Amino acid sequence: MTDTHILTLSCRNRPGIVARVATHLFLHDANIQDAQQFDDEETGRFFMRVRFGLMSDAASPEKLRGSFAEVATTFGMDWTMRPRRDKQRVVIMVSRFDHCLTDILYRWRMGELDMEIVGIIANYPRETYAAHEFGDIPFDYLPITKETKPEQEAAVWRVVQDRGADLVILARYMQVLSDDLATKLADRCINIHHSFLPGFKGAKPYHQAFERGVKLIGATAHYVTSDLDEGPIIEQDVERISHVDTPDDLVRKGRDIERRVLSRAIAWHLDGRVLRNGSKTVVFRD
Amino acid sequence: MTDTHILTLSCRNRPGIVARVATHLFLHDANIQDAQQFDDEETGRFFMRVRFGLMSDAASPEKLRGSFAEVATTFGMDWTMRPRRDKQRVVIMVSRFDHCLTDILYRWRMGELDMEIVGIIANYPRETYAAHEFGDIPFDYLPITKETKPEQEAAVWRVVQDRGADLVILARYMQVLSDDLATKLADRCINIHHSFLPGFKGAKPYHQAFERGVKLIGATAHYVTSDLDEGPIIEQDVERISHVDTPDDLVRKGRDIERRVLSRAIAWHLDGRVLRNGSKTVVFRD
Amino acid sequence: MTDTHILTLSCRNRPGIVARVATHLFLHDANIQDAQQFDDEETGRFFMRVRFGLMSDAASPEKLRGSFAEVATTFGMDWTMRPRRDKQRVVIMVSRFDHCLTDILYRWRMGELDMEIVGIIANYPRETYAAHEFGDIPFDYLPITKETKPEQEAAVWRVVQDRGADLVILARYMQVLSDDLATKLADRCINIHHSFLPGFKGAKPYHQAFERGVKLIGATAHYVTSDLDEGPIIEQDVERISHVDTPDDLVRKGRDIERRVLSRAIAWHLDGRVLRNGSKTVVFRD
Amino acid sequence: MTDTHILTLSCRNRPGIVARVATHLFLHDANIQDAQQFDDEETGRFFMRVRFGLMSDAASPEKLRGSFAEVATTFGMDWTMRPRRDKQRVVIMVSRFDHCLTDILYRWRMGELDMEIVGIIANYPRETYAAHEFGDIPFDYLPITKETKPEQEAAVWRVVQDRGADLVILARYMQVLSDDLATKLADRCINIHHSFLPGFKGAKPYHQAFERGVKLIGATAHYVTSDLDEGPIIEQDVERISHVDTPDDLVRKGRDIERRVLSRAIAWHLDGRVLRNGSKTVVFRD
Repeated sequence: MTDTHILTLSCRNRPGIVARVATHLFLHDANIQDAQQFDDEETGRFFMRVRFGLMSDAASPEKLRGSFAEVATTFGMDWTMRPRRDKQRVVIMVSRFDHCLTDILYRWRMGELDMEIVGIIANYPRETYAAHEFGDIPFDYLPITKETKPEQEAAVWRVVQDRGADLVILARYMQVLSDDLATKLADRCINIHHSFLPGFKGAKPYHQAFERGVKLIGATAHYVTSDLDEGPIIEQDVERISHVDTPDDLVRKGRDIERRVLSRAIAWHLDGRVLRNGSKTVVFRD
Repeated sequence: MTDTHILTLSCRNRPGIVARVATHLFLHDANIQDAQQFDDEETGRFFMRVRFGLMSDAASPEKLRGSFAEVATTFGMDWTMRPRRDKQRVVIMVSRFDHCLTDILYRWRMGELDMEIVGIIANYPRETYAAHEFGDIPFDYLPITKETKPEQEAAVWRVVQDRGADLVILARYMQVLSDDLATKLADRCINIHHSFLPGFKGAKPYHQAFERGVKLIGATAHYVTSDLDEGPIIEQDVERISHVDTPDDLVRKGRDIERRVLSRAIAWHLDGRVLRNGSKTVVFRD
Repeated sequence: MTDTHILTLSCRNRPGIVARVATHLFLHDANIQDAQQFDDEETGRFFMRVRFGLMSDAASPEKLRGSFAEVATTFGMDWTMRPRRDKQRVVIMVSRFDHCLTDILYRWRMGELDMEIVGIIANYPRETYAAHEFGDIPFDYLPITKETKPEQEAAVWRVVQDRGADLVILARYMQVLSDDLATKLADRCINIHHSFLPGFKGAKPYHQAFERGVKLIGATAHYVTSDLDEGPIIEQDVERISHVDTPDDLVRKGRDIERRVLSRAIAWHLDGRVLRNGSKTVVFRD
Repeated sequence: MTDTHILTLSCRNRPGIVARVATHLFLHDANIQDAQQFDDEETGRFFMRVRFGLMSDAASPEKLRGSFAEVATTFGMDWTMRPRRDKQRVVIMVSRFDHCLTDILYRWRMGELDMEIVGIIANYPRETYAAHEFGDIPFDYLPITKETKPEQEAAVWRVVQDRGADLVILARYMQVLSDDLATKLADRCINIHHSFLPGFKGAKPYHQAFERGVKLIGATAHYVTSDLDEGPIIEQDVERISHVDTPDDLVRKGRDIERRVLSRAIAWHLDGRVLRNGSKTVVFRD
């Protein structure tokens, strides 16, 4: 029986990395099924993602991980290695609009988003999402005001920690995280921004787009950083609009872009396809 | 025999405009082949484009134009009416990069851009465009420096006037027009901006896009106004990029976007499909 | 107060139709908000869609309809005129796969599909759709086998008639309708075909696409006719695939195409934007 | 100084291929810059493309090639290894329509198609392409009729051989190659088919598309095989059409699709990104 694993790594580029990694895997009964790499010539940094199968029952993921740690140390790698069947634990945060939540739940149910949803946090009460059957997923109503923000974020952080969340998805959560919380969630919090960044930052981007008379609108999924609207971009997409579209039409068309952009970003993140590269990302698409 | 004409108009919206226009055309032997309209609910302005055929030899375009002038006065219309076979006279301005020029000449030769090219103005000498056979098209080498800009623009303006140009195309001309020249060419000068506005204004937009790590780049065709990078947008398009694309790759991919966006904007303008609406445009696409 | 209405018509083309229609509407206090038309030069047929507002309370839709009937008779028009707020009554038919159903319900809930769902008919039992909260919508489990097809279709037809359905949506219903039922539902039954017709007809189109090694797959929404896979096409779309995609990946990517193609076709149909033109359609997109 | 090389290979899949290839390259002073691979689980075949740099002047491409041959033999590889700066020698065949030729020449001139054009063969006389300045490229006018086809193809084959052509591009050549010539040019002759295969095979595909009322049209670049319209597909693309498009409009829109699809397929082929996989292709896109 074969068990699939994902290895991701990045380090300073130098000759022989691929040979060393591939040989190490081969010698430990790991068969490379797919491998992608990228040399960032600007920064001299090397990125790699390997999907491999452990072929014999004898082969132990733990032993492989242990021996690979030595290779990683030699090259100074940032790296992760995990069995594909180990589902990441995900908390979804949502506000009044539930179109992204709807899409995420649908794709999760269909098996397209291979994760375990360990919590839904909303700053609106449960009845706002009456159309949804959440089943076993814990729902936390954590309202927020300017005054209660510190307490609310502390509560959010407790949920994230208590549930052992690997990833937090801001599914149109509409609240700016504090620098503190953003830092705590670095590289494991994905936001959907309802604009084709850096086009229309700030509030009401669709209305800004309408005023400017652009012919395409878009959305951007990015990792959350303390610098609002400026985190590393994972995915973007656009849709054509025209003079007949009102701001409401833009909002409606925007919903479709937002949900597909966010779902793609989540799927790629879960599959170990997104590697942080400073203020940018490397995305190994299939 | 039928001769096709294009009528465009805009005025303050009020009931009965379509009925009045359609009836007037019908009573003057003009058969409506296509009609499109738009009510801008925000500004209360009405826009219309009608393509019609004059059916009998007896019907006179001049008489129709004369009688329609009265209708137009009644409604306070901005309007144009012209035979489709009357080709617009076009001056193309170009700088070092000739990819947009190449595409325009190709589409003009194929009959896709139905216009008469009455001049090519370049701030680089003729040999820069050695690969092109310009045939009968006059070529003017008008170099420009900071100091000679007023004289150069005066020479440009003379060419535009002497040739009776209806339209000036900045086919990656790379020079900012003075407020004076921009004003003189208002609503009849189309520029291609090598960015998906308002994303990356200013110099070297593809390098800005590279730095920001966006996942799509684009280009924008717009009417030139004295406010650089801010004229009414006619058309935009994008292409997907990834982490492997260097700034040079973005420039290369950008060329394809630029030429198709500019060519579309020109074709629509020539066909009377683009109506100015303040700082925006109404584009009646087919 | 203004009430919006949609007029659609088609007839043999001849001069004066637009003038007559526009004038009639104007004289009956109807203000044209949008109008689109199409002359099919191949067949000599004329198509038109008008969205208009009835401006005064005095104006009566019934009287307008009555008087317009005379105009329609003069020109031999096929026509419909209905208040936009009158929602069409829709029956959705579904089989094992519920991705299209999910998308339709979501868009209906968001107000993007402005209709009244008067029934869901499935050939799988209610628990197949456990993730859905159908609320007040009647659900009919009507299983089908080769032998029971006539009875099942009779039951379907009863539901359609009893509920006064204006439209039947085959949301991946996966069953071929009999000629008889297809004929009864002519022009008011939309199917989603999981192939970019006419590319891969028949069974398992995604597997056919995989075998052929195409680089794009698509889906097709069309009106149902007795000739399977051959009804008038309303909308199509595609998505890029590559050599790494397995048949299962194609099925997964296909779901996204299917649901957006079907939802667009439904929205356009509900809004009176789709007019049948022999074996083709005229689609007045906004 | 670094010299870039491209290695492509395919063989029956088995563990250790990547390790062996990577190690061999590393031990011979070759630094892997990019590597892509694909396991075809259906056929059990493995495909790989490696771009590497030879780092020292001491490293010899010939010696590397010699030593790699042993690795290749061990695994039973089909393989190629060539310096990227060695331009492939290309013959372009063209008929009456020159839009694909125009695009190829433009991209070649811009450096986007890194090849040496060693001949243009046309079945129309030189004046048909008067707008083009061919420079040093030899032009052969080889007219063809049903009767002269064998002689004409013999002349084509002589040109291909005499010029040492690595690749033959059918840039809308519009003639069906004989089985004999198709076989001789196997895997090194790319055709552009003006249809989204397998949609509309045979003659006049755009007219077929018009008759069927489809909403998207496309084009297909594929390797030529003796089975017309059935060769391994390299690339496809589509464009949206509507009811207003006449067959002539489809032809016009088709030109744009054809030229971009063909140019992409050529660029990928030249860069060693397209590997034949039976009746399909593996395309390692960047």
